[in-house]
Amino acid sequence: MATKNYQRIGEVTFSRMEKVNAELFTLTYGAVVTQLIKDYENIDEVNKQLDKMGYNIGCRCIDEYFAKSNAGRCNDFKDAAEALSKVGFKMFLGINARVQSFNADNTEFSVVLDENPLADFVELPDHLLRSNLSFSNIISGVIRGAFEMAMFRVETRFVKDQLRGDDVNEIRVILKELLEEKAPQDDD
Amino acid sequence: MATKNYQRIGEVTFSRMEKVNAELFTLTYGAVVTQLIKDYENIDEVNKQLDKMGYNIGCRCIDEYFAKSNAGRCNDFKDAAEALSKVGFKMFLGINARVQSFNADNTEFSVVLDENPLADFVELPDHLLRSNLSFSNIISGVIRGAFEMAMFRVETRFVKDQLRGDDVNEIRVILKELLEEKAPQDDD
Repeated sequence: MATKNYQRIGEVTFSRMEKVNAELFTLTYGAVVTQLIKDYENIDEVNKQLDKMGYNIGCRCIDEYFAKSNAGRCNDFKDAAEALSKVGFKMFLGINARVQSFNADNTEFSVVLDENPLADFVELPDHLLRSNLSFSNIISGVIRGAFEMAMFRVETRFVKDQLRGDDVNEIRVILKELLEEKAPQDDD
Repeated sequence: MATKNYQRIGEVTFSRMEKVNAELFTLTYGAVVTQLIKDYENIDEVNKQLDKMGYNIGCRCIDEYFAKSNAGRCNDFKDAAEALSKVGFKMFLGINARVQSFNADNTEFSVVLDENPLADFVELPDHLLRSNLSFSNIISGVIRGAFEMAMFRVETRFVKDQLRGDDVNEIRVILKELLEEKAPQDDD
């Protein structure tokens, strides 16, 4: 089985997509987080809402992924990790991501982002730095939603965040269950 | 005074901007509106929140506009309308907009959008069609914020919306006050 050139697929797909200004996206996302912090007093609830929003977006992104990238289905969880980092992040956010730190039985990995368009020019004020706000948590949700549509139920969470002084942004993705496709109805 | 070629400025600026996938932006914006509808029972309040978010974004966009477009300051309200439609909409949303229906004393105009990336593939369910939800109201707010930073206090509102079956999207912009720049402190 030939290895797919996901990097090339990601670049070509991104170049063909309709686009908007990344700064506008950043500002809009910032407004969302600000709104949620105002509406929910509890920061855990804010993280949860961002994750939920992301989940719904991820469930839709997967259609776009298959329709526009021609990358085809993934062979296994490891292959899905590659597709996520090289096609997914490129075609939606225009950035390069990399996969690392797979565990021994290939059921956990990290996606590492050197840059994060959601948090460009963002500085968390002290009281939010002291809270457990996961500012870019929508990304965790998007990965969770997209993977679930690809039949991998996963848990996701930020384990490093440049907004908190870490050198990179790192999201841990943990496989919880291989979902089963319902067999298509046979018309014969 | 030479007329600025705003169309060209808009295209060149957009081509130079960092970008993200428009579909991702649309999905994210849809998640925001859904969240607000859930959080506020009153649709008037949702429209107001979208306008406020937009206002804050618009106040920031104007910096990006001056920093990246080199379009310079506007001569008057009519000039600002042209800059908004040809540079602003192009450099942030990647779309063409046009100005029409100026009133006799040049204090009101409409911006017309044949396409609206915020509402791509969106269909309002019946109960929202019956409400007075202005789905893309964030755009009204962005214009209001950006114009205020450019010393024009305006009122803005959607008067046509393709989501409601209109042929185009039309935002009416009404000049309420010419703001005065504070004279810079003289150090001499």
